[in-house]
Amino acid sequence: MRILVMNPNTTASMTASIRATATAVAAPGTEILATEPLWGPESIEGHFEGYLSAAAVLDRLATLDTPFDALVMAGFGEPGREGAQELLDVPVLDITECAVQMALMLGHSYGIVTTLDRAVPQIRDRLLTAGLLQRCAGVRGTGLGVLELEEDPERTVEVILQTARAVVRDGAEVICLGCGGMAGLQERVAAELGVPVVDGVAAAVKFAEAVVGLGLTTSAQRSFAPPRPKAIGSWPLSRHLVRTASGERHRMQDSARHTDFSSETSGI
Amino acid sequence: MRILVMNPNTTASMTASIRATATAVAAPGTEILATEPLWGPESIEGHFEGYLSAAAVLDRLATLDTPFDALVMAGFGEPGREGAQELLDVPVLDITECAVQMALMLGHSYGIVTTLDRAVPQIRDRLLTAGLLQRCAGVRGTGLGVLELEEDPERTVEVILQTARAVVRDGAEVICLGCGGMAGLQERVAAELGVPVVDGVAAAVKFAEAVVGLGLTTSAQRSFAPPRPKAIGSWPLSRHLVRTASGERHRMQDSARHTDFSSETSGI
Amino acid sequence: MRILVMNPNTTASMTASIRATATAVAAPGTEILATEPLWGPESIEGHFEGYLSAAAVLDRLATLDTPFDALVMAGFGEPGREGAQELLDVPVLDITECAVQMALMLGHSYGIVTTLDRAVPQIRDRLLTAGLLQRCAGVRGTGLGVLELEEDPERTVEVILQTARAVVRDGAEVICLGCGGMAGLQERVAAELGVPVVDGVAAAVKFAEAVVGLGLTTSAQRSFAPPRPKAIGSWPLSRHLVRTASGERHRMQDSARHTDFSSETSGI
Amino acid sequence: MRILVMNPNTTASMTASIRATATAVAAPGTEILATEPLWGPESIEGHFEGYLSAAAVLDRLATLDTPFDALVMAGFGEPGREGAQELLDVPVLDITECAVQMALMLGHSYGIVTTLDRAVPQIRDRLLTAGLLQRCAGVRGTGLGVLELEEDPERTVEVILQTARAVVRDGAEVICLGCGGMAGLQERVAAELGVPVVDGVAAAVKFAEAVVGLGLTTSAQRSFAPPRPKAIGSWPLSRHLVRTASGERHRMQDSARHTDFSSETSGI
Amino acid sequence: MRILVMNPNTTASMTASIRATATAVAAPGTEILATEPLWGPESIEGHFEGYLSAAAVLDRLATLDTPFDALVMAGFGEPGREGAQELLDVPVLDITECAVQMALMLGHSYGIVTTLDRAVPQIRDRLLTAGLLQRCAGVRGTGLGVLELEEDPERTVEVILQTARAVVRDGAEVICLGCGGMAGLQERVAAELGVPVVDGVAAAVKFAEAVVGLGLTTSAQRSFAPPRPKAIGSWPLSRHLVRTASGERHRMQDSARHTDFSSETSGI
Amino acid sequence: MRILVMNPNTTASMTASIRATATAVAAPGTEILATEPLWGPESIEGHFEGYLSAAAVLDRLATLDTPFDALVMAGFGEPGREGAQELLDVPVLDITECAVQMALMLGHSYGIVTTLDRAVPQIRDRLLTAGLLQRCAGVRGTGLGVLELEEDPERTVEVILQTARAVVRDGAEVICLGCGGMAGLQERVAAELGVPVVDGVAAAVKFAEAVVGLGLTTSAQRSFAPPRPKAIGSWPLSRHLVRTASGERHRMQDSARHTDFSSETSGI
Repeated sequence: MRILVMNPNTTASMTASIRATATAVAAPGTEILATEPLWGPESIEGHFEGYLSAAAVLDRLATLDTPFDALVMAGFGEPGREGAQELLDVPVLDITECAVQMALMLGHSYGIVTTLDRAVPQIRDRLLTAGLLQRCAGVRGTGLGVLELEEDPERTVEVILQTARAVVRDGAEVICLGCGGMAGLQERVAAELGVPVVDGVAAAVKFAEAVVGLGLTTSAQRSFAPPRPKAIGSWPLSRHLVRTASGERHRMQDSARHTDFSSETSGI
Repeated sequence: MRILVMNPNTTASMTASIRATATAVAAPGTEILATEPLWGPESIEGHFEGYLSAAAVLDRLATLDTPFDALVMAGFGEPGREGAQELLDVPVLDITECAVQMALMLGHSYGIVTTLDRAVPQIRDRLLTAGLLQRCAGVRGTGLGVLELEEDPERTVEVILQTARAVVRDGAEVICLGCGGMAGLQERVAAELGVPVVDGVAAAVKFAEAVVGLGLTTSAQRSFAPPRPKAIGSWPLSRHLVRTASGERHRMQDSARHTDFSSETSGI
Repeated sequence: MRILVMNPNTTASMTASIRATATAVAAPGTEILATEPLWGPESIEGHFEGYLSAAAVLDRLATLDTPFDALVMAGFGEPGREGAQELLDVPVLDITECAVQMALMLGHSYGIVTTLDRAVPQIRDRLLTAGLLQRCAGVRGTGLGVLELEEDPERTVEVILQTARAVVRDGAEVICLGCGGMAGLQERVAAELGVPVVDGVAAAVKFAEAVVGLGLTTSAQRSFAPPRPKAIGSWPLSRHLVRTASGERHRMQDSARHTDFSSETSGI
Repeated sequence: MRILVMNPNTTASMTASIRATATAVAAPGTEILATEPLWGPESIEGHFEGYLSAAAVLDRLATLDTPFDALVMAGFGEPGREGAQELLDVPVLDITECAVQMALMLGHSYGIVTTLDRAVPQIRDRLLTAGLLQRCAGVRGTGLGVLELEEDPERTVEVILQTARAVVRDGAEVICLGCGGMAGLQERVAAELGVPVVDGVAAAVKFAEAVVGLGLTTSAQRSFAPPRPKAIGSWPLSRHLVRTASGERHRMQDSARHTDFSSETSGI
Repeated sequence: MRILVMNPNTTASMTASIRATATAVAAPGTEILATEPLWGPESIEGHFEGYLSAAAVLDRLATLDTPFDALVMAGFGEPGREGAQELLDVPVLDITECAVQMALMLGHSYGIVTTLDRAVPQIRDRLLTAGLLQRCAGVRGTGLGVLELEEDPERTVEVILQTARAVVRDGAEVICLGCGGMAGLQERVAAELGVPVVDGVAAAVKFAEAVVGLGLTTSAQRSFAPPRPKAIGSWPLSRHLVRTASGERHRMQDSARHTDFSSETSGI
Repeated sequence: MRILVMNPNTTASMTASIRATATAVAAPGTEILATEPLWGPESIEGHFEGYLSAAAVLDRLATLDTPFDALVMAGFGEPGREGAQELLDVPVLDITECAVQMALMLGHSYGIVTTLDRAVPQIRDRLLTAGLLQRCAGVRGTGLGVLELEEDPERTVEVILQTARAVVRDGAEVICLGCGGMAGLQERVAAELGVPVVDGVAAAVKFAEAVVGLGLTTSAQRSFAPPRPKAIGSWPLSRHLVRTASGERHRMQDSARHTDFSSETSGI
């Protein structure tokens, strides 16, 4: 089974880190592909960037010619999942919802530690819409921006721990790491915190294996029926974007072969 | 005061109809501008198209050089409003929320008549997130697609009426027209239905006048703070899209001067 | 268009202050009338007084012979709006709901600063019933009684600011002033607070203009159908109240003519 | 123990019927007093009449010189209870809430059969505010007005049964009679329906006995603290109302002595 | 009328204390029986013990040959009530729900003071399921285990008071004692706290009198219909349990005769 | 990895069917054990039987000497899961919640087809408590009892299909089979229905693999902390139950070895 993990921003080091986490938890026989959009913001910290990213992810999906069995969307609290569900006939797992669903299997109430305070209402809204907010004991920001997470890992773990302790005092029995860029830190945080810590990327990969394992996929009934045929100007966007001088190559990393391969998407 | 009304799809006849409704209800001294995105779907009937449209609308806003005092987003149930609120320092009114807020001023419970059944959960989710769903007695689709609304106006009114009557039986005391493309039909429907009928475009224009009239604008506290400075690849998109042969012109209509003017956005 | 603003208590100086705020925000062509009940409490700080006021306001409306196009009810969190909606065929706007609806147009979550702590559950209940509580981040009292607000304006602003800052820490992105007697302070508070501040009287006047501007009025379907014909003992009350020696005159202030005129209601 | 049962409208035959029901269920040692307001509507079918009645009931309570140990307010879905709680230092039981609370002791979900359809949202709102709506399976009107209930008892029972059956199909496991004027019909309806039927007046009397039996009364903390001292014009209203020619006498019926006594309230 | 009060654990001193509270509040003519299960945990502090207790209570009920008119289940936040409602044709009152229902008659919002912090989510869940959580301002643990409550009554009252004050600051206007083992302390706590304090055992006894007084009992419609006939292995359990050497006798205390009597259940 | 699947009732044929479904979906390397309680009801159709079963399952778990890595509880809508979470240090997955969580990964709204109508409120309550009810479009009973499901498989599929279609009309985009005894029918139902159909046993096995695969287990923080040390009379129950003449043997089936082995629990 091949699972495509989509980093919603264009920062390749984050794709690599997400890919590493996904690969580490994949079952034997599961191959992890990881990529990011061909355009859009280097990190996502708000609605404006979230909406750009949603379209950039859909564009990436529309132009990809690699087959896969499930998509994991690795943006925490970000929009776009429903669009991918309409576009694809394989299951789509969002790390926000997967982190929370895993947490619900482990405790009565969960909490989320995220990056900036401005992400808090956005994350809560995604979970409200997903019908998963009821058992949320709290969502708190660390104050670290997405790209700051990688700067000083020791400090990042320390700040996450401090924030997580406050969320536990709010009543959380399980902690979710609320940013794709935190993937890989869950074990260290859990060891010190004493409560289970869930990373959404890891959870989503396992849930993707579960869904694919049962031969299930997104319902085509009502909400996520395929798009109706119609004219869409300049679509897919990346095929209409001016080729830039730098000729930047985009990576897709294959966990099985442990080699990079370039996307072959024409016009890039 | 100048209000920009943004049709979320690229169908110019719909921009014209929305502009006509907006102009008809504008107060003396209010000038209505109307435009649509430079790329994206011709109509929006689902999440995939909604997310494309959200980015296309943000792109249009980022490249517009006409000043305005408020933005009305004329997509019913569609995403993107929060992104525009971050991007702009003038108030942003969404017709979904405005229709419902107007309805709440007129009756105890409201209902919505929209296009396709697949839009129903999407609209409910937007209202859930907006905190405005509690007094909703029902949302029902007419079965007509967005672009079908204009085909046979008599039949459109008839089907809306029939659907609205079902929503009234569900308990609605006020009916909202659930598609920007229904703008202009509210009076005919109300006359036959016997309960108030709210068109979101009309409501949003009046509320935009109200907000601007009080000198208020979107809070920059937390959720809708301006985007942080960062690298965004190929942004604004329309400046990086290959100029197409047809050299399609985009309209912006000015209700005051009653003349069209082309957008001068470079690179299109 | 003539908008009648009803101060729910009998304190004339508060009517004057509410009228001044309403007049200041009214559009050209909008005439503001302001009045108060002919009997009842001098301020409203609880349910008992709220219910008396509701009947006193209905009595005032039943005996008024001045035509108007919309009613603004200027009590924050107080009952009675639904009764006026049944009685009148013009739209009725309540400042509680209007403040919150305006706030919802400006930010993700709102908070309310009110007078006494005992008003807090009452305000929350009104908003719960109105279907507008979901995005409420907090309601807090300043500890100042309604009539104390006018005593020392500097201190009032200071205490409102202090309370508002706590509500912002609760997550509010917009602040609503939670008492008709605070009308006029919104700009000073906003300037210091750095988040938008909404006064309900101002919001309600603009929304009244919006509703009347669209030719809409309260639905007569179900909840707010006109009262059924029946015997009502001693109604209207003010026509049956013993004329008191003092022969007190009641004011109605007309923003256009800037002159007072006495109500001509017989028996007063 | 003396329980005062307040019919919210001025129809004496309804007071008598409510008093009979209350007396029939009272424990040995419980004395039932029953009365109605000195002014106001003959029946209550909507918000306007409900608000008048609330003030009329408070006026009646303010001028009554008979001591009692608990107040039962016998209007279903009508406002005013919170005002009486502030005014009195004995417990106040509302039949709406008591019917539902009794029903919650008897089954998983309850339903309500009321008079006119227009009462349905009003009743739901009262229960929403009371925090008792969650287990409501449905509220339905019979189409009979309040005063029509007494006209043809056979037909009334038949229509209640028919409506109750629909509410049971909605999922109700217990039925509440949703009008004080239905008091006394619960046994006949239950016998035919096969599910428990609760009359609010009966429930409230028993709950009043329970509360008084434990020596408890309304909390003076926050919401229902006594009114603050202040000027209230023309209060109590009935002391300022012009004595009418007919010199109508008001009844208070004492279940113990089984005799009527007139209220001695001065000025009536 | 005979009310059976069931202590859910096997600690006889707690049965005695619960019985004393029940007897103290019973009306003349109400006889209180009190007993506990024949097996199971000595106290209940969590889900595991709660589920054992639920079965042990049902077993006790299935083997009891004493008739009674109502059952009071004296475990706070513990499961099992629905099972007893299916098994018995007399009404079943749970002290959790009764405490809260009584509190709702006395104030706008209530709070609960319980034993260990781990009970808090369990209590909230019971009230969520019962549809009674909406007006809950807070549930807090004292940190005292169930059996510790009896150790040092002075300290117990002190710790309850301290916790109750925090719950009042959370917004509670009435306090419920959240453990059957706190029965009897309500008056002392109330005297110092200044807000009404409700003990669930006392409330449940009075509500049982109310329900029985109206001739009502649990609905057999849907949720609490009698169990269907089927094979149940080793049921009732206590008839299949090996007789232990100690030959322990179980008490049932009769408030009328003030004497103990042993249960005659065979096989014990 | 070894997953223990617990049939909550004592019907061995149902254990076999559940075990077959679990084995069919297990990943390579996953061994399925399946068993049922040593006492209790042959099927569970209500609260009384559910509570007995909860204790019987806990008893079975307390006396089992086979190690396992995760527990799947195969009762739909039945209590007990929280108790097992306290008792065990391996993760516990309930099929009710797992079916719904899987459904949430596949569509916007889900529906449930269960056995008897009386199970409907019970299932809804379990999901309400689990925080998973929000996206439920409907729960409907087929009218077939648990043990009737196996009687005529053709008719069972037909009745499930008919009920599922009604739930789809209610708005469900995914259907959950709402009884452990329906395990194995999902593919046939899905094929005819055209929307995804989730069997809880299958979902729970895959989710158990996911949780164990990440090295996670139940939080010991607060709700599901291990039981405190205390005296529990006659525990474990099965060790104190009188050995019956028939000497019934209990099965545990091992999917790896495909052989039965008897439980060695002493005293049975």
